Amino acid sequence: MPLGNIFVGEFLGTMILILLGNGVVANVVLEKSKGQNSGWIVISAGWGFGVAIAVYVAGWMSGAHINPAVTVGLLVIGKVTAGDVPIYVAGQFAGAFAGSVLVWLAYLAHWGKTESPELKLAVFCTAPAIRSYSRNLITEIIGSALLLIGVLGIFSAHNEISSGFGPYAVGILVFSIGLSLGGPTGYAINPARDLGPRIAHALLPIAGKGGSDWAYSWVPVVGPIIGGILGAFIYQIVVSRLIVG
Amino acid sequence: MPLGNIFVGEFLGTMILILLGNGVVANVVLEKSKGQNSGWIVISAGWGFGVAIAVYVAGWMSGAHINPAVTVGLLVIGKVTAGDVPIYVAGQFAGAFAGSVLVWLAYLAHWGKTESPELKLAVFCTAPAIRSYSRNLITEIIGSALLLIGVLGIFSAHNEISSGFGPYAVGILVFSIGLSLGGPTGYAINPARDLGPRIAHALLPIAGKGGSDWAYSWVPVVGPIIGGILGAFIYQIVVSRLIVG
Amino acid sequence: MPLGNIFVGEFLGTMILILLGNGVVANVVLEKSKGQNSGWIVISAGWGFGVAIAVYVAGWMSGAHINPAVTVGLLVIGKVTAGDVPIYVAGQFAGAFAGSVLVWLAYLAHWGKTESPELKLAVFCTAPAIRSYSRNLITEIIGSALLLIGVLGIFSAHNEISSGFGPYAVGILVFSIGLSLGGPTGYAINPARDLGPRIAHALLPIAGKGGSDWAYSWVPVVGPIIGGILGAFIYQIVVSRLIVG
Amino acid sequence: MPLGNIFVGEFLGTMILILLGNGVVANVVLEKSKGQNSGWIVISAGWGFGVAIAVYVAGWMSGAHINPAVTVGLLVIGKVTAGDVPIYVAGQFAGAFAGSVLVWLAYLAHWGKTESPELKLAVFCTAPAIRSYSRNLITEIIGSALLLIGVLGIFSAHNEISSGFGPYAVGILVFSIGLSLGGPTGYAINPARDLGPRIAHALLPIAGKGGSDWAYSWVPVVGPIIGGILGAFIYQIVVSRLIVG
Repeated sequence: MPLGNIFVGEFLGTMILILLGNGVVANVVLEKSKGQNSGWIVISAGWGFGVAIAVYVAGWMSGAHINPAVTVGLLVIGKVTAGDVPIYVAGQFAGAFAGSVLVWLAYLAHWGKTESPELKLAVFCTAPAIRSYSRNLITEIIGSALLLIGVLGIFSAHNEISSGFGPYAVGILVFSIGLSLGGPTGYAINPARDLGPRIAHALLPIAGKGGSDWAYSWVPVVGPIIGGILGAFIYQIVVSRLIVG
Repeated sequence: MPLGNIFVGEFLGTMILILLGNGVVANVVLEKSKGQNSGWIVISAGWGFGVAIAVYVAGWMSGAHINPAVTVGLLVIGKVTAGDVPIYVAGQFAGAFAGSVLVWLAYLAHWGKTESPELKLAVFCTAPAIRSYSRNLITEIIGSALLLIGVLGIFSAHNEISSGFGPYAVGILVFSIGLSLGGPTGYAINPARDLGPRIAHALLPIAGKGGSDWAYSWVPVVGPIIGGILGAFIYQIVVSRLIVG
Repeated sequence: MPLGNIFVGEFLGTMILILLGNGVVANVVLEKSKGQNSGWIVISAGWGFGVAIAVYVAGWMSGAHINPAVTVGLLVIGKVTAGDVPIYVAGQFAGAFAGSVLVWLAYLAHWGKTESPELKLAVFCTAPAIRSYSRNLITEIIGSALLLIGVLGIFSAHNEISSGFGPYAVGILVFSIGLSLGGPTGYAINPARDLGPRIAHALLPIAGKGGSDWAYSWVPVVGPIIGGILGAFIYQIVVSRLIVG
Repeated sequence: MPLGNIFVGEFLGTMILILLGNGVVANVVLEKSKGQNSGWIVISAGWGFGVAIAVYVAGWMSGAHINPAVTVGLLVIGKVTAGDVPIYVAGQFAGAFAGSVLVWLAYLAHWGKTESPELKLAVFCTAPAIRSYSRNLITEIIGSALLLIGVLGIFSAHNEISSGFGPYAVGILVFSIGLSLGGPTGYAINPARDLGPRIAHALLPIAGKGGSDWAYSWVPVVGPIIGGILGAFIYQIVVSRLIVG
């Protein structure tokens, strides 16, 4: 795949992911927003469908990993070459930053009306419900491993999933992970999704913002990378043990 | 495409869109309605599925733009001819007006029971959560640009989406935009969807109605047009830069 | 189509529709049920998916009208023969009755714990939010006309919808009608869905039940029949005016 | 099908089912979880999509019964051989246990913060809303019979459902059963889903746990088995009566 396509696809896909994903958090947590306090079904549907739209738009351009954990997971099982990884990750982080700027712009009138700096930070990056780095890490590892297993399963040649339906199915996978495993850490399951917007939070002139919680920032990077590698390995081992006629 | 088909398809599609879209707002905001206060998931699902049904019914007739921002966006990238634009837009506005009348009829018993003129207006057209025309405009531009990018992405030939699934995917796109970007302005992202029903609100004998908020009415017209053009251009530029084998 | 197939398909399909549809109402309104007060999104999703499952199971048997308004609508545009109508409707009413008995059994522990006879009746049949027979009739006519237009549109040969996806699309149509037009009357849009369970309510030994509100019972029968005929005619006229290449 | 494939597929599929299914219950009921009290739509969507993901991953490996009631139902109509049943069920119980351990780990920080032993048990296995073994049994029988009828209907050759969409449709079936029939007993409709995690609850060192409610434990085993057999028989009888051209 041409490197330019990879960068463009990952940039555009991750930008859409963050615009729709962090957009739904803004809608639910910012003061006076029409979706304020509309609950977890809105959060998880918003992220799930955001993934689906991102993959519809960028899937044919770059494969639409839109997540370094996916890229690294695919690397360890030989589906991505090492030389392509930096360009994938660069596109993902650049896109995540651009998406964060768009969310900030789309909700421009609401930052000054919202008092809590914690809620404003929540629009950009995840924070644990109960702070315990080791336990938060476990949650992110489990969610990210399931993400890789799910993606590899959905696109297994045995399923013969159509290119028109595949992006929706991946959206449902992320919708599902959000519903079920998002409770303890807000399911980053994606280093670019968390660190990119965290950097944007630190740099953007957000009215009345607080700190960017750098102490926690390594968890949603390290956890998803470990989980992504683990999930890809587990899937590969399982499949290699099967007898396929 | 025959002009008659375009008018009929756009009329019917936009009528269904507004009947289902403004219908869900009526269900959520009007006094004594069974869905009163059922929240943002209901609003965004109602509009999303409304789009899907409209496109199922009218897609093969006219392409089911059901939105002047889509028509203009497609015009600037050469997918619609200039001569067809007036007939598209005429069908869209006529259909939006007809859909508004149907919503008024379907909820006929509820207008007199609802006190707030603002809630009654909300059934017809959007209003900003925080009034700031420049910021509201930005939100509408971002949402409408994403709409065009999403539609062009979903129906990209690379996705080979089936004609039986495409309308549902477009519905999920609008569901997603509503969930994530609807908070500040109620996501008109469609001049016909906003101005058509606003005119209907002004003309219909709605019990206890107030003003039609004409001061704001230009924002959900200008914003979507700018956003639609921008989104179509961005998508075209991105795709033109890719190396396609 | 063999008459036996029609009866069996309509019986089974309508039984499933009512078991899932009235089941979701029971879940939301009966005392101590785990889904009590879970709101309109649950009600409308429950009915929508109930339709989808019913059509998956019975679609190939009888076409799965599961609704006399659909049968009569298809009759007037020549897609069902007059001789088949009685067997369709008989299967639908018998199935609706059987489904009602199953809902009563599934929620057997909850009837005695629920005080309100109105809520118990609501599990079986619809009641208007604001009683006004003429206005309630209009709402049912609009919803049922849209049901027919939507069904005919979804299964239009132009959409080439697959037999594996069609039932889901019809489910989304009913989900959408529920979200948007269910507010005033609870969207019977189906005489068998309303009258069949109303008869079951009158006959079953439901703990602490009240009257079956026969005064209203004609509205959700007459409205859907008028709407079904109207919708089928409108669709046919629209399509006949189009120029199809 | 090779026995190894069956075990691996059922283990992996049921593990994913329980991780996502019991995960969503943990999210909704455990103290401080981000999805706490997010309601029945979240619960039923979480289980439904959990089934879909499990079937995407494991469907081609073993058929992804992930439920002894399905296996036994298919046995009685001759679609599974008796010799394969023990390996199916062993994989299902082992997977359910593994999934429970993962839920316990993913929500590790939350067990000590949640006081109620009943809520902690609810994360693992079902409990009736109103305790009445005979009535609870009826509910589980009806739900499980519908599960089998639905699965057999969805995958009927007449529907020609694609292998890429089938798993999603089964997810919607379970979503629907949860919405509509989950109120009285929490819809186990699967002995492995209930008994496997109940055993895990008894064995795992869950902070502040209470008893595992063994008195009720037979209902969600016996009910689904009866229902599964009944549903498969009913479907087979119905289909055998039809005249297929």
